[in-house]
Amino acid sequence: MVPVFADVEAAAARIAPYAVRTPLVESAVLNALTGGRVFLKLEILQRTGSFKFRGACNRLAMIPLNERSKGVVAFSSGNHAQGVAAAAQLFGMPAVIVMPSDAPRSKIEGTRALGAQIVEYDRVQDDREAIAARIREERGAALVRPYDDAAIIAGQGTAGLEIAEDAARFGVTLDDVLSPCSGGGLVSGVALALKGAGSAARVHSVEPERFDGMKRSLEAGARAQAPGGPLSIADALMAPIPGVIVFELAKDLLAPGFAVSDEDLERAVSFAAQKLKLLVEPGGTAALAALLAGRIDARGKTIALILSGGNADFATVAAAVARLPAP
Amino acid sequence: MVPVFADVEAAAARIAPYAVRTPLVESAVLNALTGGRVFLKLEILQRTGSFKFRGACNRLAMIPLNERSKGVVAFSSGNHAQGVAAAAQLFGMPAVIVMPSDAPRSKIEGTRALGAQIVEYDRVQDDREAIAARIREERGAALVRPYDDAAIIAGQGTAGLEIAEDAARFGVTLDDVLSPCSGGGLVSGVALALKGAGSAARVHSVEPERFDGMKRSLEAGARAQAPGGPLSIADALMAPIPGVIVFELAKDLLAPGFAVSDEDLERAVSFAAQKLKLLVEPGGTAALAALLAGRIDARGKTIALILSGGNADFATVAAAVARLPAP
Repeated sequence: MVPVFADVEAAAARIAPYAVRTPLVESAVLNALTGGRVFLKLEILQRTGSFKFRGACNRLAMIPLNERSKGVVAFSSGNHAQGVAAAAQLFGMPAVIVMPSDAPRSKIEGTRALGAQIVEYDRVQDDREAIAARIREERGAALVRPYDDAAIIAGQGTAGLEIAEDAARFGVTLDDVLSPCSGGGLVSGVALALKGAGSAARVHSVEPERFDGMKRSLEAGARAQAPGGPLSIADALMAPIPGVIVFELAKDLLAPGFAVSDEDLERAVSFAAQKLKLLVEPGGTAALAALLAGRIDARGKTIALILSGGNADFATVAAAVARLPAP
Repeated sequence: MVPVFADVEAAAARIAPYAVRTPLVESAVLNALTGGRVFLKLEILQRTGSFKFRGACNRLAMIPLNERSKGVVAFSSGNHAQGVAAAAQLFGMPAVIVMPSDAPRSKIEGTRALGAQIVEYDRVQDDREAIAARIREERGAALVRPYDDAAIIAGQGTAGLEIAEDAARFGVTLDDVLSPCSGGGLVSGVALALKGAGSAARVHSVEPERFDGMKRSLEAGARAQAPGGPLSIADALMAPIPGVIVFELAKDLLAPGFAVSDEDLERAVSFAAQKLKLLVEPGGTAALAALLAGRIDARGKTIALILSGGNADFATVAAAVARLPAP
């Protein structure tokens, strides 16, 4: 089922007692660099350090009370894992999370600290969906999909609703909104919310090269698989193809997508730390990376970049700063 | 002249076209840690990376147009320098900044990049006030004091006005507000603004041990000098005694002050980077350091911490994370 704007509004009411109302803040540094007005949506400050809590919280809040004791199961490289674990903890539900063994230690430990049971798998050899399905059958636990689910998309869309509200409060009209994209739950939910809130902003997905399934799908007009290949530094953004429900929304709501290289992402991580004073994980910087790499010209325009997550190991950020110091 | 609340309101209108409306954001991490509700005022996101732009912009905006060509002069360890340089650049005024030669390179370079002329001095041997006075006489430039000036205090107070506005928007009543304190312009301006806006929040200064002139002055009921001694890691917070005008406000408006050790500050720098995803300079973390070190019990209370600046060299933050990793 494809979500509608009312689902985003309902999600906003449902998660309000639990989620952080994250700020939209103008960046004088990026204004000066681009000649436009650049606003940042700081989902790095969301509960669990990424936007993923929004969707997970909305999805779990919709599980009937008499089914909650069976718990939930999810597979995730880390941010969805923490979002689901945190929501499960708040609702008193057991959670099993299937995570790749090469996920950042901060994400694995963060998930464990939220009371979830972790099952690790090999990203190349194992089938995470099969592992999750088995756990689901054994326990009767609800599977919480990372993006291809109306409740998840509506939950992520609440970030877009807040962007629209804050833009109105600041008296600005957004021309473009750029969002990191993996399976596409965030970018499609945000586009749904912005349109519903009356914004005419163009909403763009930003993906790592080789994992730019959304960009390719939008160009083809149908879901298309990205080539994949060597793992990206953006561990959170490696879905090879957008979700089915996601793309039903995306094909009508999104402007053309962008792809960025690993070096673009690493440069953005370094820039964020040194110039913006923000610790952003590689995948979380994708929208910023697209701006810094010149994928979009912000001169004379008003744009918003979603910084979607901050769950990098500190060493990852330090390495980026050492290798590509901001000028 | 001691500023009044109307001066803060006038300052807010004056700086609105130039200053960033920085966010107040709730921290789920600190809520969980303290059992209270903890909000962060992110002055690290202010233009030039610290609150200092507010006061400097207000002060320079009040210089008559026919005196602007003579320019301004200021002495500063770095954040005031950048605030003054940025405001001067916006108003097309020449600026000379007298800076200690041991200031963080990021602060010296940041000031130079804003078009200011830098005059370096030795923090131990030279008299920065005398150097600034000489430049002032030679050029007829206006001296922009770092804190003991009604226009500066009123400008810094605009941060307090925004805290009051955002607390109202979130429907919360603040019990306590903690602010880093050096000469006291920020903490006294914020206290003036909060009281004027109808808040009954207790406002506390937080200073490094050995440089806790405000805390000692409040205890004594009169301006008192801190002992000083080895330089603090908080390069921005080493004024030994609060300003005269500052203390006129502070003695009536402030709750008891707190002092924190260098290790408390370094631990807060590490915690901010790892758990809050924020790059905060040592002095900028003083309020957070006081909370983490147990100077105030936030359980069941609603408090706001001002993170006043983020202009640390990245290596300083990396060293803190390496030495005192967050648990």
